[in-house]
Amino acid sequence: MKIALDAVGGDHFPQNPVAGAVKAVEENDQITVILTGPKEQVEKELANHDYPDGRIKVQDAPEIIGMDEAPAQAVRSKPQSSIVVGLGMHQKGLVDGFVSAGNTGALMAASAFILGRLDGVMRPTIATYYPTVKGFGLMIDAGANLEVKPEMLFQFGVMGNIYARDIMGIETPRVGLLNVGEEKEKGSETLKKTHVLLQALPNFVGNIEGRDILAGQADVFVCDGITGNILLKFGESIPDALKMLLMAVFKKKQLEKEKVALVVSLLEEAFEPFDYQRVGGVPFLGVNGISMVGHGGSSPVAIKNMILNAVKMAETDINKKIIASLA
Amino acid sequence: MKIALDAVGGDHFPQNPVAGAVKAVEENDQITVILTGPKEQVEKELANHDYPDGRIKVQDAPEIIGMDEAPAQAVRSKPQSSIVVGLGMHQKGLVDGFVSAGNTGALMAASAFILGRLDGVMRPTIATYYPTVKGFGLMIDAGANLEVKPEMLFQFGVMGNIYARDIMGIETPRVGLLNVGEEKEKGSETLKKTHVLLQALPNFVGNIEGRDILAGQADVFVCDGITGNILLKFGESIPDALKMLLMAVFKKKQLEKEKVALVVSLLEEAFEPFDYQRVGGVPFLGVNGISMVGHGGSSPVAIKNMILNAVKMAETDINKKIIASLA
Repeated sequence: MKIALDAVGGDHFPQNPVAGAVKAVEENDQITVILTGPKEQVEKELANHDYPDGRIKVQDAPEIIGMDEAPAQAVRSKPQSSIVVGLGMHQKGLVDGFVSAGNTGALMAASAFILGRLDGVMRPTIATYYPTVKGFGLMIDAGANLEVKPEMLFQFGVMGNIYARDIMGIETPRVGLLNVGEEKEKGSETLKKTHVLLQALPNFVGNIEGRDILAGQADVFVCDGITGNILLKFGESIPDALKMLLMAVFKKKQLEKEKVALVVSLLEEAFEPFDYQRVGGVPFLGVNGISMVGHGGSSPVAIKNMILNAVKMAETDINKKIIASLA
Repeated sequence: MKIALDAVGGDHFPQNPVAGAVKAVEENDQITVILTGPKEQVEKELANHDYPDGRIKVQDAPEIIGMDEAPAQAVRSKPQSSIVVGLGMHQKGLVDGFVSAGNTGALMAASAFILGRLDGVMRPTIATYYPTVKGFGLMIDAGANLEVKPEMLFQFGVMGNIYARDIMGIETPRVGLLNVGEEKEKGSETLKKTHVLLQALPNFVGNIEGRDILAGQADVFVCDGITGNILLKFGESIPDALKMLLMAVFKKKQLEKEKVALVVSLLEEAFEPFDYQRVGGVPFLGVNGISMVGHGGSSPVAIKNMILNAVKMAETDINKKIIASLA
């Protein structure tokens, strides 16, 4: 199994990708990682590490797409970038998947453009892990598709169901449709039609309201990319907002240092299950290949986990199952 | 100033509405409250209270619309309900506003149907107070309009701006458009067009991302009713979810009772500024009158605050300002 890894994606390159590649080949002795990026720069960093002979290789890709570059234009204008070269290798069958902690928009655009869509898929989508009191759920779409049709939302449900089951290990994922009320006649015309379509899934649990997300009343939350993107970023902002509110209380009450430290450490422990490093990255689904993107700040551990997740996607042949489910 | 109050709205009637009315006339000696509901039932409850002579009256309305009744049908089939009677009195000019802790959907439908729309308003809307680390913001729309056009979203921004300034007391409210990115070319076609329209407001601060809401990067959050409703209910679910996550940590660490009590009380204090009782209720905006709805579980204090908020809306003649701003 060979996975291509963007050696110059994210906020800390090439250090973190290279270190992540080393951890990945140490943890799984069946894989080889191909680092894509400016050869000299990547090889210099790689020289700082020990790793099993021949299990990490470098494919030269002299161009770098920045985190803030306009996606479509960056992909078009930089054919020698680490992203375009890595996905190109995957498209040619030279590797079994491509992962990056780089520019999400550019990765989505390049994945769709270079790998193409899976048979029967209307629109590729990006899913995201979402914290609930019962563990991680999957929110799909997380920002790739801002204008949606019922059939597209239905397909997000089908793809999310398969990913949650085969990659996240949730035996029978409860698929829910984010909506303003539980009753099936609630919502916009698009949501009402989507509800009817999703009833074809035996594990569709109906409409899910805003209060049901953190409570974990579903495992797969189907929504359009605007709702998903706003909820994703909103969720990420909760710990900091909470800390600010608590700090104000600590100050007002002039709480002793030890008590402040206790509360802060308990909160950090409560949020620990939702550390993005554990999941490493999130998948583009519906593209004809395996492509994942990680947080820009990805640590070596996060990058290692993203590589291993891509391996799992390739091993379980998730795309064949998606095609079969949509046929 | 006379305000009609639904005496049989919410989960605890007629006790809480009646007690709220008593508190309101005690706090503001310029107002009279007219309780609408089954006369005998309401008068019996009122007999348990002392209040200034003649400042609380009862208007018979023998029918009650339940919290779970289908809105439009309930309004049509119960012309003698406390809601329809109260709004009818307001429409006839017998009172200066109507407030209720009852069925939100029925109140929205009845307000739009009985009071009608303000001149120039495309769609009446419901706004909601939304907690941020800088205090309450206003989210508009909170669930009344699920299918929106750019011109409607623009009007929500205009109405929210006036409400935030004149009723919430925010001198120059920062009006933001909820979107997937900060740049003005981000979002769906509807959001892009709305962004252009909102630039006509001098205090428009541009697109606001999900992470900016709790951080208080705007005072007025403009969005469609699906996004607003999901975020409203999501926000309400945060304290309980947090408690569940913390309880698991307490248990795992076998934390002493006193420390658990300390953490729980600090958290409760941190969330205290967002107690819905403080604001009492939220307004329907764009209807030709003053109409507010409160939480079903409204306490007497919450109902008192809702009455006083309606008085403020009537005193500041908010609707005249909305008409002028949209002209």
